[in-house]
This record gives sequence, structure tokens and C-alpha cells, in this order.
Amino acid sequence: MPSKILSNSVRHLISISELSNKEFETLVTKAIAFKKIIKEDSKSDILKNHQKLLGKTVALVFSKRSTRTRISSEGASAFFGAQPMFLGKDDIQLGVNESLYDTTKVISSMVSTIFARVNSHKEIQELAKHSSVPIINSLCDTYHPLQAITDIMTIKETFGNVEGLKLAWIGDANNVINDLLIAALRVGINVSVATPAGIEIDPKVVLVAEEIAAGNGASYELTHDPLAAAKDANILVTDTFVSMGEEAQTEAKLKQFAGFQISKEHTGVAAPNWKFMHCLPRHHEEVTDDVFYHENSIVFPEAENRLYAAISVLDTLVVNKGDFSK
Amino acid sequence: MPSKILSNSVRHLISISELSNKEFETLVTKAIAFKKIIKEDSKSDILKNHQKLLGKTVALVFSKRSTRTRISSEGASAFFGAQPMFLGKDDIQLGVNESLYDTTKVISSMVSTIFARVNSHKEIQELAKHSSVPIINSLCDTYHPLQAITDIMTIKETFGNVEGLKLAWIGDANNVINDLLIAALRVGINVSVATPAGIEIDPKVVLVAEEIAAGNGASYELTHDPLAAAKDANILVTDTFVSMGEEAQTEAKLKQFAGFQISKEHTGVAAPNWKFMHCLPRHHEEVTDDVFYHENSIVFPEAENRLYAAISVLDTLVVNKGDFSK
Amino acid sequence: MPSKILSNSVRHLISISELSNKEFETLVTKAIAFKKIIKEDSKSDILKNHQKLLGKTVALVFSKRSTRTRISSEGASAFFGAQPMFLGKDDIQLGVNESLYDTTKVISSMVSTIFARVNSHKEIQELAKHSSVPIINSLCDTYHPLQAITDIMTIKETFGNVEGLKLAWIGDANNVINDLLIAALRVGINVSVATPAGIEIDPKVVLVAEEIAAGNGASYELTHDPLAAAKDANILVTDTFVSMGEEAQTEAKLKQFAGFQISKEHTGVAAPNWKFMHCLPRHHEEVTDDVFYHENSIVFPEAENRLYAAISVLDTLVVNKGDFSK
Repeated sequence: MPSKILSNSVRHLISISELSNKEFETLVTKAIAFKKIIKEDSKSDILKNHQKLLGKTVALVFSKRSTRTRISSEGASAFFGAQPMFLGKDDIQLGVNESLYDTTKVISSMVSTIFARVNSHKEIQELAKHSSVPIINSLCDTYHPLQAITDIMTIKETFGNVEGLKLAWIGDANNVINDLLIAALRVGINVSVATPAGIEIDPKVVLVAEEIAAGNGASYELTHDPLAAAKDANILVTDTFVSMGEEAQTEAKLKQFAGFQISKEHTGVAAPNWKFMHCLPRHHEEVTDDVFYHENSIVFPEAENRLYAAISVLDTLVVNKGDFSK
Repeated sequence: MPSKILSNSVRHLISISELSNKEFETLVTKAIAFKKIIKEDSKSDILKNHQKLLGKTVALVFSKRSTRTRISSEGASAFFGAQPMFLGKDDIQLGVNESLYDTTKVISSMVSTIFARVNSHKEIQELAKHSSVPIINSLCDTYHPLQAITDIMTIKETFGNVEGLKLAWIGDANNVINDLLIAALRVGINVSVATPAGIEIDPKVVLVAEEIAAGNGASYELTHDPLAAAKDANILVTDTFVSMGEEAQTEAKLKQFAGFQISKEHTGVAAPNWKFMHCLPRHHEEVTDDVFYHENSIVFPEAENRLYAAISVLDTLVVNKGDFSK
Repeated sequence: MPSKILSNSVRHLISISELSNKEFETLVTKAIAFKKIIKEDSKSDILKNHQKLLGKTVALVFSKRSTRTRISSEGASAFFGAQPMFLGKDDIQLGVNESLYDTTKVISSMVSTIFARVNSHKEIQELAKHSSVPIINSLCDTYHPLQAITDIMTIKETFGNVEGLKLAWIGDANNVINDLLIAALRVGINVSVATPAGIEIDPKVVLVAEEIAAGNGASYELTHDPLAAAKDANILVTDTFVSMGEEAQTEAKLKQFAGFQISKEHTGVAAPNWKFMHCLPRHHEEVTDDVFYHENSIVFPEAENRLYAAISVLDTLVVNKGDFSK
């Protein structure tokens, strides 16, 4: 690696924690607006006007496969007329055949932005440090900002005014809740996070949450009691208990998560008009069928909204070159 | 899976058996017309007017690889300005990491249509049942409608008036002949199907063929004698004897197909101006070189026509939202 | 394979040796011009005017993976509005499931051009012989014309007038230097090629070099002494010592290349304003960090220029149908 690296002024999307409250709200509001435009009028004329990245490419550098992230990123690229380029682990292995620095320099010199789904947060940081184009974190082991934008967007669509709502996370202490906790607090949603004993939210994330909550009048609590979390919650959220790469520990993890399968027991103590969310793919151990497929479940609109979240981010970081005011 | 699933009015393409004679002819006629437009004038202005799916995506969910199907589907998508998204078995495994229902709901919420190349016909039916966008069967174990449209298109281009022609299939009882038999009868072509003894056409397909033939004045016969089938045939057609996934049974299958390799013996008893067709890829056991590369062989125009068949289907199901009258 | 194959008049890009000096210079000049257009004004209006392959597809038939080649080819396709279609070794295996002849006929009937990254030069020649659309050699075991266009382009950008410069290649006798040697001589650059004893430049290539040098006033020398090659060189170039597929011989090869790692020792005897180039990916055995990341290293602009080289080639062979005068 060269001894001196010029810092650049490119805006990336690494975590919701790196955005201001206002910037985050802009991304959410814009996602909702794009959805309306696309749903209400899908005539080519309307869509033609949004082909603002015509002739350009968008790289998807994915160390792990992901249906939803891939389809939404490619769909968002297509919406702006850019050519998505999927580079999976068989196409490119970050840091294996050449240094991550070299790869980042080369790819970023030929594309307009990079959606990166990597293993470690460190990799995302390296990419962002050396890339001449925006890096969009499409999942690392610490954050999942596109999902957080999607989730708050879905909650806003469902509830309208979100301030003072209670969101209960019942599940693992993972990348999804890290960004969702921060995101929810940013828009004034109170959060209760229930994780199994011994599985704790990253202290770094708690510090950020603390700060936002303090400035915002929102509150959060960390508990090991799923029912306490579910109590009066407007939104119940969970995610897989066994993340990709952890399959060997399945049995041990499932034991640890005993009592965490969201069921009628939890919706029974939630607010009357509770909603259920899950970033998918869903496995049975996380939630019973009668909750997952309940009419109060908004998991499929949530999944669809990934597309609009990606469009909003592309519009802000690439079309408008990181200017959140446009 | 949820207890109640609302039926929707989306038109899919699952099999030629599910189309009316007129709908099928529309797809063929349109394919020929598109080919003319594209061949005669490939200037960007003409092509620009057909960019009717601009900003949208088309998913290719392929459990099996296929060069022709993939290139023609992606080519058709590009013709309309849509972004094709190839999801092979390494990208998505239907029913493995989440239910087929969930996957279908999610993918169909973010794309404009799905080309699906699956294993079992049941999978295609499940996809069609739950998808909010058209499912285009790009090969299942029972049907291959895109190939049937292509083949009748190619025969029409070659012969003009096709009524009363004799088509001889000499080969396996598989997905290709299932739809081709039905398709040929729909346009008034008489069909003779020769399969090895013990390999019989699906009775379900025979029932449909019976009904169409009765209403149409066309005839079909099922035989185990390749020369009887070839007698006076205008078109000789075959396909691989060993389908993908059956490689372990190669030796046994080839024994069973002794006498079925199309050669001068067969073209010698066919109509003077016989044509040879094959959906490719071709192996030597199915047809000799002197027939396959004969000037009467139309296998390469046939392969190219896959593109126009896919364009015709996309135009009808997606651009015109299933309205065959446009 | 059919007994008679009609020759066609399609222009392919197989090797720099098959171009005239003037044709080669056209490709380089055009690449520089396109870069300027794209860099100076990336507004959609400008880019929209170049969407001349709208509605069409470009096949990338890659037997070997390659980040740079893939991204630049897909980027060039997108620049012209064409849909790139990546067909890797898991998607298509040339000559395995059907004859190369059949595959070439079929693919070329449905796409506007084929970027082919194959193993043997014979494969590229077969493709070119049977394809109805331009074949663009994107690396075979003998030539790498896109890299040669890129490299001369980069040298022209850096030095302006290139006649009389000295380029020193210190490395393997491979596909990259084969075309680079010919390319450099075509534009009047003198070349010194240092390879380890026992590793010699292909006599076929030397013959072409001889002829061009004779007609051009440029000179070349073949040596086994890296320092002699580096002496007064304006440009030092190397490449991997162990090509893809040769990993088993790594240890033996590295031994053979002792003394060939480009370092201060070589730049010390080079011209004062030396530049360093490498087609990447780079490994440490080929060049020390202090040279590779030196401010005189132009490896990253060189990598980026792959995109503009591919655009120039697509423009000439596909948009302008092989007419180099446009």
C-alpha cells in the first residue's frame, strides 16, 4: 500500500450511525417518494426521465450471496439506466489474488458506485478509504444500513407518524439490529432490544444509541426478556438466529434462543394493532407461521421496499453526488 | 404458507396447452414480425421505440444452466430496455433457504417478469400461483413452450403455409415434444411421434393433443418405428436422448435409442424437400453429420429464432400485460 | 462441422499483429478521445448520444475469470447502451457439451459481438472463423490486444510524442508482451525485452516484430539481462510470472525469475523520468512496493484505460461495423 493516500470527499453509506438525523430522514422520505412515482405511473416516459446514470455501470462486489440485496441493487441501477455488474465470490475474491487496495483503486476507476457485501466491517472501511466512488455497505458483520432505511420506510408507510412508537427486536445482536436501533432512535421510535443472555449489543453501537436518544427524546432498553420487549410494542421485529457462515453452530445457537420464537404469546402482549417485520429469508425457529403470515405481518412490503431504499441511496450518493439537500 | 392466497389475473406462459389456438398463433406471428423489424432496420431509432420496459428488470431464475435460453431471454429483455438479472443455482436455490412461496412473493415484487428454468413442473405451477408478475416457463420437466413457439415460427418462415404438413419427431418422450406436439396440431400440422418402445408420451399430453386434433382437422400418430414416422415427413425433428441430470443412465438410454439416430435412411423416405430441426445442443448419437449440417437443416435459424420467440412473449405478457389482442 | 464454410467479411480483433499501423493508431487515438469526452462531460445528454447499441447484447464468453477485462468490457457495452451478458466457465464450456462450431453459430446469431477470453489461440481462431459477429480477443495464450491498446494509450497520454522512447519489458515471454512488442513498434517505440534464459519470445511474434521494425525505423532487442533492458528505459513494464493455470509450477518459475523483480536497481539505471506499468493483478515477486507505488508508477491510470480501449474497439468493430475510417 502506498505511504500516502489522499483523503477524498466522496460520501459513502457505511452505517446509519454515520448519518445525521436529517440525512437519514432524507433517505427514508425520498425512498417513499420514489415508490409513489414508480407505482403510480410506470409509463416509460416517467421512467425515461430518471435514466440519469445512462451509459454507466454499478459494481456489486458480493462476498456472500443474497437474493434480496442483489435484486434490489440491480433494480435500483436499472431504474437509473446504469448497468449493474454482479461480481460474486467466484468472480472476485477481495484480498486474495491482489491487495484490497489495488482492487479498490481499479474497480472504482471504472464504475459509478460499488454495492459491497463483505464479511468484516474492516473490509468496508478499507473499501471506503481507497475508493474514488461511493461505497454502499450492502451488509457487513456490523451494519446493514440499506435494511434500516427500508425498515423505517416501511414503518412510516404503515403508521404515518412514527414518533413515540415502540419497536421490539427479539433476536440476535447482529448487524441488522445495530443499524435499526440507531435508525429507529433517529426518527423518534422507542426501541426495546431482547437478546438471549450472553448475547449483547455491541458497546460501540450502544454509545451511539445513547447519544441519539439523549438528543431526541427517544428511549431504548436492552433486555433478555422477549415478553418484556414485546409488551405494548407496535412493531415486533426479528431476523435469522443463525447467520451465514455460522451453520456449524446451529444446534448451540438454537438452544441459546429458546423462548425467542415470536408467536401469539408475544403478539398477545403487544399493542392491539401490532405489526410484524423480518428482513428475510425467514426460518421457522424465529417466528411461527400464524405470526409470519398474519394479516398484521408486513414482511413482503418490507422486502419490496428494499428496492426503493436502494433507489433513494443511489439517487443521493451517485446521481446527486452525495448532496443530501437535492 | 398463508391459509388464503388471492388468485390474481396475471397471464403466465406455462405450456402451449394452456393457450388457445389463436393466442398461440398470435405469439408466432408476432415473433416473425419482430424478427423482420429487427433484421430490416437495426438503426437505433427503430430500436429506441421499443424500449418499453426501460428502468425495469427481468429475473432469470435458472435451476439448470442453458446457453440458448439464457442468451435469448437476456436479449429479449435488452430489446425492450429492461435489465435482465441472471439468478443461477449458485445465486438462488428454490425452496432451500426459504420457502418457494416466500421467494416468489419477494422476487415478483421487485421485477417485471420471471423467466423460470426449473426442475419439476410442480415448481413452475407454484411460481405461477404466487407470483404477482408473469412467469415464463423456460423449461420444466414437462413443457418447453418457448421452444415450441420458436419451432412453429421457424416452420412458418420456411414453408409459408403450414397446414397439412407432416412433422416427424424421432426421439425421446420429453418436454420438447410435449409442447411441440400440441403447438403443431394447433396450427394444423400433422404429427408423427416415434419413441423407443417403453418410452411413451405423457397420457395427459395425449389427451390435449386428441382434443386439439379433433377440433382442427389435424392428425397425430404415436409409433415406435422411426422410419414409419419419417415417411413423407416435411420436417424431421429430434432432441437429446440423455437429458440434463440423466447422465448416469447414458449407456442404458443409448441402447434403448438404437435405430433412432436420424440419418440418410430417414431423409431418404421423407418428403423431397424435407427439413431437419433440433433444439440444440446436439450430440452425435441423435443425428448424423450429413443430416445435421445438410443444406436442408434449419437448426441455426431455429436457434436464432429463440430470441424472437422470447421477444414476442415479453411483448405480449409484460409490455401488453397479457393482452394477446395488441 | 459442415464441409463448406462461407468466409465472411466481419472484422475481428485477434492480435495487434493483424492490424495495420494506421488501424492500430486509430484505436489508440479514439480511446484517448472517448476518455476525454467521458471525463469532461459525464452529463446524461452527452452519454445519451452514444447509446448506439441500444436494445442489443454483447456476449462475454470467458473461460477464465478476469476482473479488469470483465469490468471494462461490460462498462464499454453499457456506454453504448448494449446489454453485456457474462458467460463464465460455469455457464458455458466451449467444446464440451456441443461443438465449438455449433456454439459459435448460435451465440453469434443472437448478439452484436463477443468478447472472448479463452485458453488457446486456436479457440479464438475457430471463433473468428465461424462467428457472424466480431470476435474481440480478450486474452488467449498468445495475444492480449486490448491490453496493448491500453498500454500504448497510457504511454501516449503520459509522454505525448512517443516516437523514439524506450520501453523495457522485464518478465515472462507471454501473451501480453507478444502484442505489446508489436504495438510499441507500430508507433515507433523501441523495445527491449528481457526474459529469463530458456524463456524466449515466440519466433512467430519475432518475425512480425522484425518486419514492423524494418518498415518503421523502430528497433527491438531480446536479452536475458534485466539491467541491460532497463538501461535508459522510459517505461519499465512487467506482468505476473506465474500465469493462471500454472500455479503448480510456482516454485520452479520463481526460481527461474530470480533477479527479475523490478526494483530501485532497475529504475536507477532507467531514464530520469521513468514510468512503471503493469497490467495487474500484481504480486510482490514481480516488483517491489517502492516502485509499484512510486509516483512514477502509472499502473492505476493504465488499469482505468482498459475501459476506454474497450470502448474504442466496440465503436470501431461494432458501431462502425469494422470501418476504421469513421
